Amino acid sequence: MTRVISDLPADVLPRGLAGVPVAATEVSDVDGQAGFYHYRGVDPTTFARTGTFEDAWYLLHFGELPTAGEREAFAAKIRAAMTMPPVLRDSLPAIAALGPPGSMDVLRTAVSAAGVAIGCRPWTEQDMPLTEAQMFTLAALTPVLTAALYRLARGQTPAGPSDDLDFAANYLRMIHGADPDAARVRALETYLILAADHGFCNSTFAERVIASSGADMGAALSGAIGALSGPLHGGAIDRVPSMLAAIGDVSRVESWLRDRLDRGERLMGFGHAVYRTLDPRNTVLREVAREIGGERIALAEVVERTGIALLNERKTDKRREANVELYAGVVLDYAGVPEELFACTFPVARMAGWTANLMEQIADNRIFRPAARYVGAPPR
Amino acid sequence: MTRVISDLPADVLPRGLAGVPVAATEVSDVDGQAGFYHYRGVDPTTFARTGTFEDAWYLLHFGELPTAGEREAFAAKIRAAMTMPPVLRDSLPAIAALGPPGSMDVLRTAVSAAGVAIGCRPWTEQDMPLTEAQMFTLAALTPVLTAALYRLARGQTPAGPSDDLDFAANYLRMIHGADPDAARVRALETYLILAADHGFCNSTFAERVIASSGADMGAALSGAIGALSGPLHGGAIDRVPSMLAAIGDVSRVESWLRDRLDRGERLMGFGHAVYRTLDPRNTVLREVAREIGGERIALAEVVERTGIALLNERKTDKRREANVELYAGVVLDYAGVPEELFACTFPVARMAGWTANLMEQIADNRIFRPAARYVGAPPR
Repeated sequence: MTRVISDLPADVLPRGLAGVPVAATEVSDVDGQAGFYHYRGVDPTTFARTGTFEDAWYLLHFGELPTAGEREAFAAKIRAAMTMPPVLRDSLPAIAALGPPGSMDVLRTAVSAAGVAIGCRPWTEQDMPLTEAQMFTLAALTPVLTAALYRLARGQTPAGPSDDLDFAANYLRMIHGADPDAARVRALETYLILAADHGFCNSTFAERVIASSGADMGAALSGAIGALSGPLHGGAIDRVPSMLAAIGDVSRVESWLRDRLDRGERLMGFGHAVYRTLDPRNTVLREVAREIGGERIALAEVVERTGIALLNERKTDKRREANVELYAGVVLDYAGVPEELFACTFPVARMAGWTANLMEQIADNRIFRPAARYVGAPPR
Repeated sequence: MTRVISDLPADVLPRGLAGVPVAATEVSDVDGQAGFYHYRGVDPTTFARTGTFEDAWYLLHFGELPTAGEREAFAAKIRAAMTMPPVLRDSLPAIAALGPPGSMDVLRTAVSAAGVAIGCRPWTEQDMPLTEAQMFTLAALTPVLTAALYRLARGQTPAGPSDDLDFAANYLRMIHGADPDAARVRALETYLILAADHGFCNSTFAERVIASSGADMGAALSGAIGALSGPLHGGAIDRVPSMLAAIGDVSRVESWLRDRLDRGERLMGFGHAVYRTLDPRNTVLREVAREIGGERIALAEVVERTGIALLNERKTDKRREANVELYAGVVLDYAGVPEELFACTFPVARMAGWTANLMEQIADNRIFRPAARYVGAPPR
């Protein structure tokens, strides 16, 4: 019975606040025209293939890449925060039972629970260093929760992190219950670095709106996961593998994609809201995928070429390119991340950018309380 | 190490988007100068003392107050949605154990869990009637979860709703495990009606930002609770009773309040971000409180008069008045809501406005993805 408000009054800002700057930030930025993004001025593609996820996280949080000593100290701090409080560990079987393994809504619930379990309070009512420690702990617990929920849903006992491993390696260890080999860690590390932040996206805005009320870090970060789980934002990384599986063979690529487009359906792995050129993350992940090799990457490359050709033949308003999702699945699969966990691995990485943005929000806060133009029934 | 961004660039909108209209809405509006608010054009203070909470909810959702038949059908629909799925019921003891009874972060976690348990999926991937049914169910489950978590935290078995009772009466029944008397239900009903919505506040904005990505109703509504839990938004309803208890006697009011103001602390129950005059909700709740009578209300009235006088003697930029919180505690206490549940009773009511706003958002959606002005280290 709700009437669609299609004609906004002239004094209402563009729908979705598109293109409207609502904050100043020093964390990260995206230049969609140039196909370039950066963390604190540093291009993550320059160190994505050699650095660690802790490098990206440290850079986003503190503004500079760490020295060797700083990296070691930071990694140790993160590792120490990966231990679940008993009350949280005890709640996980019941939370895992709520839904299928790898659902982002289950992870959202667990991160919310973690916020309670570690004693998060409204940040306006505690010291900043405590709030900072709580956001680090929640970010460090996100791979722990993701892996534990996955193992519980499969009837396995959760596997703890190792003091000898860094973040990325520990994530794989906690999924499989065994130390991973270096090549797989390297592939995961590259994905995590590239996905650690990406400008003022919907989930970053959502968490800043929540935190601006003084709400605790559990509220802000579970809200961010909630926002990221929307298909218009978090995308379809976990659907690319099933698309490749459905196509099956390079000989079927063109007919499969044409058929899908003829039915008016979206192609997974193509198009981006901001980039008008190659997604720089895609460029790096394609390179990694090529080195991995195999049938799946060969198929993905044909899908990329054919998809771009078909899309640009049909829609000429702007150029379509493959996005970060097309090769991310190939890379994560090689790294040993199960397909069910592709979606949740995105927030595992993005926590780095989210926490950096939360620090910025609380350092200079004003509650987000915009106006709305009332256009309904007049007061009677 | 994050530098405070105190001087925003000229092309960035006012901090917190204060006064900036970001959407058109038909749900509700607040006129802070006139001291007036309404739901769909109807002044809730005109029916707060005689109507039911279902009236307010129906009005907010469908745009008109219900006829007797519509009210009955709607109330029956809400009652039917108050049954927890077994997997959710089974998860509650572990969720209740995470934190103290009545914490809004525990409720946020339980509502997130409920979203998973009832099978919420991104609304962009399902029919609108299913999404609408899911938001109704989550709103109907909120008092169920609030009461069950409270009883579990006290070592009691959760008490189910009765088919013979409406929403407000069932909330009290589920808290106490016994049918409440009519006068108490009436007091609660008045509070719930007045608190059901209040314009485009921070939590409403937060849930609309989250839902705009296509995220499921559990993500949006748990995010709204998270935002509401911030002290700059949800306020301090649960602190007014302890303030009254600390003051103890009318003879100590002035010295107690003066002392607090001298120490630079905030007075609970005074001031509002929007109202520049009497809060119309306060007017109604004071009336109800006066009829209830007793020492507590006598004390509250002296606190109101003295607090207003002291505040306006110190700050003359705008007139300070008591807000909705000052008498809400007295009314909820009389209704039989335990003090620990005052805070969570706010989202129990506000779900009505939140769901109406979500309907409006998804009926004509555009993802909220504002820009931010990057002012950090230049790309290097």
